Amino acid sequence: MRIMVLGADGYLGWPTCMYLANKGHEILAVDCSIKREWEKECGVSPLIETPHISRRVGHWNNLDRGRISYSGLNINTCFSMRFQVREFKPDAIVHYAEQASAPYSHISSSHCIETQRNNILGTLSLIHAVLETDPSIHIVKLGTMGEYGTPNMPIEEGWLDVYDKEGTMQDRVLFPKRPGSWYHLSKVHDSNNLEFACRTLGLAVTDLNQGIVYGIETDETWLLPELRTSFHYDHIFGTVLNRFLAQAAIGYPLTVYGTGGQTRTFLNILDTLQCVELALLNPAKEGVFRVFNQFTETFSVNELADLVQRMTRAEIQNIDNPRIEAEDHSYEVKNTKLKDLGLEPHLLDSETLEKMYKNVEQHKDKINPDSIMPTVNWRK
Amino acid sequence: MRIMVLGADGYLGWPTCMYLANKGHEILAVDCSIKREWEKECGVSPLIETPHISRRVGHWNNLDRGRISYSGLNINTCFSMRFQVREFKPDAIVHYAEQASAPYSHISSSHCIETQRNNILGTLSLIHAVLETDPSIHIVKLGTMGEYGTPNMPIEEGWLDVYDKEGTMQDRVLFPKRPGSWYHLSKVHDSNNLEFACRTLGLAVTDLNQGIVYGIETDETWLLPELRTSFHYDHIFGTVLNRFLAQAAIGYPLTVYGTGGQTRTFLNILDTLQCVELALLNPAKEGVFRVFNQFTETFSVNELADLVQRMTRAEIQNIDNPRIEAEDHSYEVKNTKLKDLGLEPHLLDSETLEKMYKNVEQHKDKINPDSIMPTVNWRK
Repeated sequence: MRIMVLGADGYLGWPTCMYLANKGHEILAVDCSIKREWEKECGVSPLIETPHISRRVGHWNNLDRGRISYSGLNINTCFSMRFQVREFKPDAIVHYAEQASAPYSHISSSHCIETQRNNILGTLSLIHAVLETDPSIHIVKLGTMGEYGTPNMPIEEGWLDVYDKEGTMQDRVLFPKRPGSWYHLSKVHDSNNLEFACRTLGLAVTDLNQGIVYGIETDETWLLPELRTSFHYDHIFGTVLNRFLAQAAIGYPLTVYGTGGQTRTFLNILDTLQCVELALLNPAKEGVFRVFNQFTETFSVNELADLVQRMTRAEIQNIDNPRIEAEDHSYEVKNTKLKDLGLEPHLLDSETLEKMYKNVEQHKDKINPDSIMPTVNWRK
Repeated sequence: MRIMVLGADGYLGWPTCMYLANKGHEILAVDCSIKREWEKECGVSPLIETPHISRRVGHWNNLDRGRISYSGLNINTCFSMRFQVREFKPDAIVHYAEQASAPYSHISSSHCIETQRNNILGTLSLIHAVLETDPSIHIVKLGTMGEYGTPNMPIEEGWLDVYDKEGTMQDRVLFPKRPGSWYHLSKVHDSNNLEFACRTLGLAVTDLNQGIVYGIETDETWLLPELRTSFHYDHIFGTVLNRFLAQAAIGYPLTVYGTGGQTRTFLNILDTLQCVELALLNPAKEGVFRVFNQFTETFSVNELADLVQRMTRAEIQNIDNPRIEAEDHSYEVKNTKLKDLGLEPHLLDSETLEKMYKNVEQHKDKINPDSIMPTVNWRK
């Protein structure tokens, strides 16, 4: 299969490129490296510095495990985007190329606007490049479980059957979203734009509403030090479990936002790769907007802190929640569709956690403690 | 009341400024005149040329019926927007400043992207200007009934109570939208952004989901020829009834898109003024995202064509529908909230229709027949 991966320099983008290349697919890795600018702006950096994507692609191709090409295209440049799609003739496009941090989108009005501009207009540019080139190209879009928020009803996979008071079914609608940040909203807007493009213009889209990803290594990142992916533990781009492990490694307390009752969905980075591959191998049909809830387990923030504490004896410290979110809520979430396609989950057992922790500990001298505590507050 | 009107140069914006000034409110009319550029680009113009907004403001102020000030601010310029809000200290802001044509958003990929860029980012700029200045400023946002599409269930006013199969209420959610164009999607995205700003950041917003407006004159546009509002009959910015009247006036057939079974909501421009005033006088509370369905009647396109045919003896011609939309659908729509606040509808009786028609006929030598037939096709 010929696959374009947009956002190929990212935490998930780069492992996806290698994983798919290793399986024999022809990969075009696209990234304009703007995320590196955002990191500099925020004064944060990944645990281990990663070489520029073009250099990593070179290292990979020397291994002779399948071919990756590289393009520095900014997907927001419509004309170049269309040209690239026309030239490469992909069967599918995996779209990770978004500003992916909720705190970043709440730094200031400009950061909110930059996030929505980049994400919404980039996705529109992709939609039109496909429409104008070959509408049968399957778009696999990374969304997030955070789009749903925490409603008082079971979270279905993308669509909701609406009943009236008498229990008569009326219509099937896009599941109503109640997101908690400007970033999460940008993904809701993307989903709405993509659903329209499927419904009226015949596109084939899989929207992967992904949980919070943890993990550092994949089968391919181990192969060479230069092939490692960017692992963020900071308050802007780091996710909760990665952050806890970094805090434990330097002997800092695990900072739980608020009471820690917030429950979220999680998955191992290995399962991200599996899920994306399953979506690619079982493409959405033309005209269909297909939604998968992509996660394997749910944990509350407290449960994660407890797991890390048991392993590392780190202290737990509750701090004021910088976000505005429910800390005590019901959370019933469906995720059968990817399992039906064959997903075999890697669950968060103690072995996995210990392996991750050792990996972080090895590099603990590189951890900047000043970049962990949250400085971005939703209330300003 | 001190009121900023964004999009003050438009079909509805300008009459709103005069109407509210005449009622004793202090008005700041804001418009960067970008709509005039879009008209030039599409080669269309309103039936009667209207003087630049700054000149119309001058004419109005000479009448001594209340004061309007003018600003040429582009609301997408965040810094200036915040400055303007801080300087003028409005009690409320009425937001019409959007690219408002569905066909325009389907001309090309650039037009789609320009529409969403302008509308979404402009509204975000407004949200942040209010958040950073005085979150108690009431935002009255013009949305559209087209956001809902034509679902197989009654269209409530903005919110939906969700029941399970057993008839147990589960949650109240934003009414799921299924819009039919890139333009309509931009308004859905606006609504989602505004709802978030109310729910988590305490803004007070009224979202007016408005039907299709018809009419040329208001009590204030009659006062001087220079005070008339821009009346569009063309295929880009003209709405259906206005277009039929222009076609009848020049002896052209009334062009019905498809079978004409499409049913939509309508209101007289006089009722737009009433509704906006009612929203302003009865503001939303802080933290509340309030939605009103703003229309007075529903008609199918065929019913409107029949009304105009009976009056003018014009022929009716069915042409291929350039849009992608259901032409045969159920349509049950709620609109009680504005009536509860005191809205007294001006219905589309034969007197109203005849008055409008005479007005159009007077200027029929200015009608450009080449700008009426649709050239923008959703299918490309």
